[in-house]
Amino acid sequence: MTIKAAILGFGTVGQGIYQILQTKSSQLHKLLGDEVEVTSVLVHNIHKERFLPEDVYVTDRFDDVLNHNPDVIFEATVGVEPSYSYLKQAIDQHIHVVTANKVMFAAYGHELIKRAGQGTGVGYEATTAAGIPIIGTLTTLLQTNNITKVQGILNGTSNYILTAMQEQNKSFSEALQEAQTKGYAEADPTNDIEGHDAFYKLMILSQLLYEKQPEWSEVPLTGISNLTESDLKSAKDKGEKIRHVATLELVDGELKGTVKPLSLPPTHGLFGIEEVDNAINVTGDLVGSITLRGPGAGQLPTASAMIEDFVQIWQTAPIKQFI
Amino acid sequence: MTIKAAILGFGTVGQGIYQILQTKSSQLHKLLGDEVEVTSVLVHNIHKERFLPEDVYVTDRFDDVLNHNPDVIFEATVGVEPSYSYLKQAIDQHIHVVTANKVMFAAYGHELIKRAGQGTGVGYEATTAAGIPIIGTLTTLLQTNNITKVQGILNGTSNYILTAMQEQNKSFSEALQEAQTKGYAEADPTNDIEGHDAFYKLMILSQLLYEKQPEWSEVPLTGISNLTESDLKSAKDKGEKIRHVATLELVDGELKGTVKPLSLPPTHGLFGIEEVDNAINVTGDLVGSITLRGPGAGQLPTASAMIEDFVQIWQTAPIKQFI
Repeated sequence: MTIKAAILGFGTVGQGIYQILQTKSSQLHKLLGDEVEVTSVLVHNIHKERFLPEDVYVTDRFDDVLNHNPDVIFEATVGVEPSYSYLKQAIDQHIHVVTANKVMFAAYGHELIKRAGQGTGVGYEATTAAGIPIIGTLTTLLQTNNITKVQGILNGTSNYILTAMQEQNKSFSEALQEAQTKGYAEADPTNDIEGHDAFYKLMILSQLLYEKQPEWSEVPLTGISNLTESDLKSAKDKGEKIRHVATLELVDGELKGTVKPLSLPPTHGLFGIEEVDNAINVTGDLVGSITLRGPGAGQLPTASAMIEDFVQIWQTAPIKQFI
Repeated sequence: MTIKAAILGFGTVGQGIYQILQTKSSQLHKLLGDEVEVTSVLVHNIHKERFLPEDVYVTDRFDDVLNHNPDVIFEATVGVEPSYSYLKQAIDQHIHVVTANKVMFAAYGHELIKRAGQGTGVGYEATTAAGIPIIGTLTTLLQTNNITKVQGILNGTSNYILTAMQEQNKSFSEALQEAQTKGYAEADPTNDIEGHDAFYKLMILSQLLYEKQPEWSEVPLTGISNLTESDLKSAKDKGEKIRHVATLELVDGELKGTVKPLSLPPTHGLFGIEEVDNAINVTGDLVGSITLRGPGAGQLPTASAMIEDFVQIWQTAPIKQFI
């Protein structure tokens, strides 16, 4: 048997998935027991040249993807729709899905997981801090621990800007421009610097840990664009660093979320996180404080998280179907 | 059905395991599908008062433990023997084993895993950096990535001493004494400060990642007791910090291991690791550089790792038996 894979969206991440499936084909064969073959790719514009082999069906219709009977769909598009509708359909046909779409998953991830039940896998490691295996750590490796608090630097762009402002004394606009030149920030950087991107990831962590989320409108988002020189100076004078931190905490049984700049002392697990790195600090009632750090974005880290997700889904799916 | 557990060794860690099994009993029931009951405990001195309920059989004979038909044995003793002999016997009777014994596991872990085959679980998360889930991350979450390099601060005692020397300008012997007073260092601190403890953990990581280890005699161990004031000063002048680092690397296809003090720049993933924390940095060919940080010792972090190990073993054992 061959494992048939489809890829939705053939931008940076979609191409990364395709590339890893090729370069790691023999290793994946060993891990999965079967070869993986990409049978279809969903794109916006089917006329664009893509250098894919002829046996990969390139289409702009999701029905065509389903007609190729994929065993797994790797979803690398942006925005809630049509992603959510596509993945619902796929799950209803017992196709495993692996997504990197944080905006969709923050809103509808729990619906997809409920819909999938036991036998169908829903992988979403790549939605939150890309290559850092925080989702797997929380779902698989820390099941007995109750996590009482999560704090993360969940957006590489704003961390890059803050690093440049504090380490190289750049102004906010200089640092932003540098981030844009290097491809770390988009032309419209609002999502990253005002905390929306970090917010979605925090909501995904909230759903995973507590099976609920705070009211979205009650999570205050404070960006980094209004930080003043004196804010930075007063942090520096105390030996601290300002970082853009997303926090989720159980306070008297109630979930409280915030995304805002915080001045962190050197003892804080997120103090030394520089440049475009992301990091997540979780506090478990048994294990104490654990921090995971790594690349929070990028083609290969994101695609890597999606492939690793699928490996785990495929390895555990047989048992999940029968328990 | 009840899941029957035995605990070998009832020191700090053994008591921690017992405590978690009690305090988390309903959560474990939910995760495992059955209740866990401690049926026997192996100790040195059966006459010592231990405040255990009467239905826990306390013995100094391993045969008694086996006669109670445990489903899982939590092993929290020190030294190669009798640990290795006990776990071999247990595995031959298809009893899952979970160990925190790094000295034994560095030498004989691969023998135990081979002996166990597919159906019997061998958990060893607690052998390496206690609460930090590095073993689970490498075995489960990063299966597709080839890890080309591992660097870790794997001993909390030596890291505590180095932190005190650099942050508080203490001498080595002052810092050591402080660590001993606080219970972080033993009366004879050789194992920790000369790198033996970190070495065993590095060998366990080597076996896991590459299915082999460097020749033990060819891994140079340099401790921290000979660091001079001028070493520390020259690091500080460069804005760097000295850390006791265990490194494992594939160089031209050959495994090279070292344990030695290194002067790390602020951009290094292990730069900001302070006090008794441990951290491990791995470089994956797809995901890039990932760092895990957390408590590398202590009763609850170590026992937590062992309980989490068992949860994963119990959840995946049914499938492993039939593939």
